[in-house]
Amino acid sequence: METVKIAVDAMGGDDAPAIVIEGVVDYIRENQRDDGFKITLVGKEKEINKELKKYKNFRLDRLEIIDALEEISMKEHFLSYWRKREETSIKKAIDLVKNNQAKAMVSAGNTGAVMALAKTILGSIKNIDRPALAIMIPTLKGNSLLVDVGANTDSKPHNLVQFALMGKVYLENVFGVKNPRIGLMNIGEEEVKGNELTKTTHNLLKQLDINFIGNVEGRDVYLGEADLIVTDGFTGNVALKISEGVVGVMLSMLKREIMSNIFSKVGFFFLRHSLGRIKKKLDYAEYGGALLLGVNGIVIIGHGSSNAKAIKNAIYLSYKFISQKVLEKISLEIEKTQISLPELKNV
Amino acid sequence: METVKIAVDAMGGDDAPAIVIEGVVDYIRENQRDDGFKITLVGKEKEINKELKKYKNFRLDRLEIIDALEEISMKEHFLSYWRKREETSIKKAIDLVKNNQAKAMVSAGNTGAVMALAKTILGSIKNIDRPALAIMIPTLKGNSLLVDVGANTDSKPHNLVQFALMGKVYLENVFGVKNPRIGLMNIGEEEVKGNELTKTTHNLLKQLDINFIGNVEGRDVYLGEADLIVTDGFTGNVALKISEGVVGVMLSMLKREIMSNIFSKVGFFFLRHSLGRIKKKLDYAEYGGALLLGVNGIVIIGHGSSNAKAIKNAIYLSYKFISQKVLEKISLEIEKTQISLPELKNV
Repeated sequence: METVKIAVDAMGGDDAPAIVIEGVVDYIRENQRDDGFKITLVGKEKEINKELKKYKNFRLDRLEIIDALEEISMKEHFLSYWRKREETSIKKAIDLVKNNQAKAMVSAGNTGAVMALAKTILGSIKNIDRPALAIMIPTLKGNSLLVDVGANTDSKPHNLVQFALMGKVYLENVFGVKNPRIGLMNIGEEEVKGNELTKTTHNLLKQLDINFIGNVEGRDVYLGEADLIVTDGFTGNVALKISEGVVGVMLSMLKREIMSNIFSKVGFFFLRHSLGRIKKKLDYAEYGGALLLGVNGIVIIGHGSSNAKAIKNAIYLSYKFISQKVLEKISLEIEKTQISLPELKNV
Repeated sequence: METVKIAVDAMGGDDAPAIVIEGVVDYIRENQRDDGFKITLVGKEKEINKELKKYKNFRLDRLEIIDALEEISMKEHFLSYWRKREETSIKKAIDLVKNNQAKAMVSAGNTGAVMALAKTILGSIKNIDRPALAIMIPTLKGNSLLVDVGANTDSKPHNLVQFALMGKVYLENVFGVKNPRIGLMNIGEEEVKGNELTKTTHNLLKQLDINFIGNVEGRDVYLGEADLIVTDGFTGNVALKISEGVVGVMLSMLKREIMSNIFSKVGFFFLRHSLGRIKKKLDYAEYGGALLLGVNGIVIIGHGSSNAKAIKNAIYLSYKFISQKVLEKISLEIEKTQISLPELKNV
């Protein structure tokens, strides 16, 4: 049996490398009997070894370490010379995927850096013009996938159609969602509503053999009526960040109100577990971060505040991605669609 | 002294005409000694008179009624034949402004209908290419103006610059905000971030003699760092509606959690006033609805769920708009800018 290797960026995340190593060890412990996998930790070897010493009773032979002298901090903004920084853990991990020394890479590091390096180093899979960043968001009915939340700034209708198809294949194969309900983020329910991009995209999506439920307004995103919401990367990024902003402000206001008088302090005491559960439900970190769909390799980007469980789950996710041959299926799905709808290439 | 007339759509709003009449009567009572104004109620005369009978002790001579046989319901979607429906209260009220029989119109009716009819019947003021819908949103520091939240679907950089200048003049003259901090909604803080629209707009805004503070990310909108946030109507509409969605879902989750056990029920009892205050703070209705900035006439669109106070405040707002000559000042500001930055017309 072939050994399937996953590269994990040991230096990525607010609490790296400690949390990353903990998540990796947890994964190995849960899969002790499986000889088919290996985790390649990429990062500062000394620090990794120091962390590894904390753990016993796990198969060390399931691990290998690749030393990387540099790291890209969480706060750094994208700079064009990143690609030339050969020694960063993110670049080295992506290079492993590029050179087929790993089948996937997981990083809870700087999202912008992982995205930019993955796009330039790996390129897109066959039939995909632009990769897209996909994220699971919590809704009243469970959760939905929002694509694209920022891999692209300006998109064309055929890009959005590809986002829809990639998201569909992903939801079906990795999460077992059958025939996912696909909605288009728009500013009105009727077909004629929207900007040039959404009007043309709407017209294309309804011609496809998918479960297209039409436009979804911002107000309805969190109701969970669609399993997949397609949007351009600019709008998706604003939508995602403004949601985080609203949650943050509501919690701040609540805190301020609670501290304002004795009655509300008493109230908070009794409600604190409920509020904790809601906060957890709305915390994107719980959903394992984002996926860069469509690059020529599997790239899973964890939230910067990922805990060990999130890292472990990201590794599980990457194996599911590999075993289900999601990249190949996405490529086939797009090809099939382009044959059935030739006009797609021209918009 | 000239009598300044305001047309009020008596049939607009979820609880029209009762709430509208109550708001109008309240306004008249608070301004009994002022002979310079008159309110023209537009709507079904019989229903209006029936409502008016509920009130005593107010100057009936400050009121006039214009009968309108039809109304556009809150749920109706925009239809091109609206303009031909001569007898709707919205159209008749806007016609009064067009014919200079009223200086402003206030409606808490169907936003899409008011906007579409105002744009086609009144047109734009001098130097403005596209009107924009402006709304006050609550922030941690008070409130900020968000422009455009849906008057346009596709915008050009020079449109966004005009939105910024209109918002600036409005905040300065109607709300007394001195040299308002103006931010551009974008997906990154750095100047080079964003889509083609925001990158070009950023470059234009920074050349102007305004207090431009740069890009504002979705996450930061509700922190209140900017007094005015400029965006295209598509993004603004998604941002506004997704915010409403998040608030709704958080309150639903809280309700579900509260009902789940006795401790949280007790907690809710003590916290209920605090939660009520937060809900009120986040309720857009409290901020009097939206303004259609840039049409050739003053059009104030109240929230559908406006109460009497909101209607009364919308009337106050419209008088301030008139007395401060905001439309004229907007036109001058744009003209001045176009002289100082001639390239503005070409983008």
